[in-house]
Amino acid sequence: MTIETVSTNKAFGGVQGVYKHASNATGTEMTFSVYVPPHEPGAKLPVVWYLSGLTCTHANVTEKGEFRAACAELGLIFVAPDTSPRGEGVPDDSEGAYDFGLGAGFYVNATEAPFATHYHMRDYIEKELPEIIAANFPADMSRQGITGHSMGGHGALTIGLRNPDIYKSVSAFAPIVSPLNCPWGEKALTGYIGSDKTAWGEYDAVALIESGARVETGLLVDQGKGDNFLEGQLKTHLLTEACEKAGQDAVIRMQDGYDHSYYFISSFMAEHLKWHAECLG
Amino acid sequence: MTIETVSTNKAFGGVQGVYKHASNATGTEMTFSVYVPPHEPGAKLPVVWYLSGLTCTHANVTEKGEFRAACAELGLIFVAPDTSPRGEGVPDDSEGAYDFGLGAGFYVNATEAPFATHYHMRDYIEKELPEIIAANFPADMSRQGITGHSMGGHGALTIGLRNPDIYKSVSAFAPIVSPLNCPWGEKALTGYIGSDKTAWGEYDAVALIESGARVETGLLVDQGKGDNFLEGQLKTHLLTEACEKAGQDAVIRMQDGYDHSYYFISSFMAEHLKWHAECLG
Repeated sequence: MTIETVSTNKAFGGVQGVYKHASNATGTEMTFSVYVPPHEPGAKLPVVWYLSGLTCTHANVTEKGEFRAACAELGLIFVAPDTSPRGEGVPDDSEGAYDFGLGAGFYVNATEAPFATHYHMRDYIEKELPEIIAANFPADMSRQGITGHSMGGHGALTIGLRNPDIYKSVSAFAPIVSPLNCPWGEKALTGYIGSDKTAWGEYDAVALIESGARVETGLLVDQGKGDNFLEGQLKTHLLTEACEKAGQDAVIRMQDGYDHSYYFISSFMAEHLKWHAECLG
Repeated sequence: MTIETVSTNKAFGGVQGVYKHASNATGTEMTFSVYVPPHEPGAKLPVVWYLSGLTCTHANVTEKGEFRAACAELGLIFVAPDTSPRGEGVPDDSEGAYDFGLGAGFYVNATEAPFATHYHMRDYIEKELPEIIAANFPADMSRQGITGHSMGGHGALTIGLRNPDIYKSVSAFAPIVSPLNCPWGEKALTGYIGSDKTAWGEYDAVALIESGARVETGLLVDQGKGDNFLEGQLKTHLLTEACEKAGQDAVIRMQDGYDHSYYFISSFMAEHLKWHAECLG
């Protein structure tokens, strides 16, 4: 589990690093970024995971997410993984589309050929990368939260709902709330998991809540009303309805005028991080 | 003076816009970005100009500068121009180097062929773009401040020192403090203004201060001690010495461990904006 440092830059008194390593989960080299805020020697800090959306790498949020000021103030480590395996031999969408294959791993363990060989983003995020973070950074792994944007919001919600003992706080920006009920989800889960939808439920936040999964600290979700993907793909109302029906605490805020971009994400990033810090103690 | 809207995104309650227009000063189309924070209808807001460094366009600081949270809180308009004319017929460095020509206008009015035709960044920043901002945004042009990074820090210092009645606050991140005394400056001013150095003084912050130019509110400068360009190009100590000798108030902070990147700039952006807001009242 050795990692190689790609770059480090001092920022807000801490260190923004980019690292790479050979991943057993994906069978590829994987790159991720970690911000470690200023801290006392020997201190162990809570960790917030940020899962990115379609087309992104670790770099988008690292450059445009505006999370470092809040992480420095609140004492949070911020981890940003990539969104898919990459490199030689990793299959992509047959037509190179942005919504499947490279940059679009959907945080699942693929079972369908040819994707089953490398597309194990679920294991990578849930199992392998946490071990690397624990071994290489001053992280208190008993205090982890998870968030993400769009496809990464889907990842954060589903990973959080499946692992409530590990992630003590769960939030999302403009998440895909139900892959079972949108074109992005249909395409991705058919391609990665196959057309039998009984296997899709564990990758669908709404279905997980309907099946009894819960996050004790509640969910925090921000969604722009001016987001072009709201009606056709994201369908926030399905999450609102599922939470109400199931009694899952959730603060789901529809934000006037905001779109799907990092201008939206960065506007609410500090509030999400403050909320994670409060949940993580 | 019509401008065309390239994009607008809601951010931190305000609007981040990108605009373009036909420039008389440069004879080209020019692109710039403006952030207008949330404000009462009819209000006129102070303006902070941010001049970017070598290789940049308006986009670098717009995406990575982390200025919007502070501008929203302080009620500041933030304007980010391009760093040179661009487009068909605009000459570049003969070898395509990053430190002259496109992306490297140095905020001068060129007098040497073939650059004298389009490279009028001084007139563009000092005269033309302010008229466009006044005409199209809720700007109080009696309350303007100016800052910038590296080449843009040089631009901010020299433009501020030459026009103390217009810019009531002047700061800089890792500025080139004396083009007369560094390789970047030697190359750029020789190419744009010619080899007779008597004409260079108005484009050199140290020379301007030595000649009696003053900024009443003082200067604020942050410089990373880990900046690779500090010793060979930026030479902050020349500014410190000139200010001390001339009695120009200046807070010049050497920051441990910080480099020349936007990780450095964003770390101190909010402090600079707070300082501008205080100077501008």
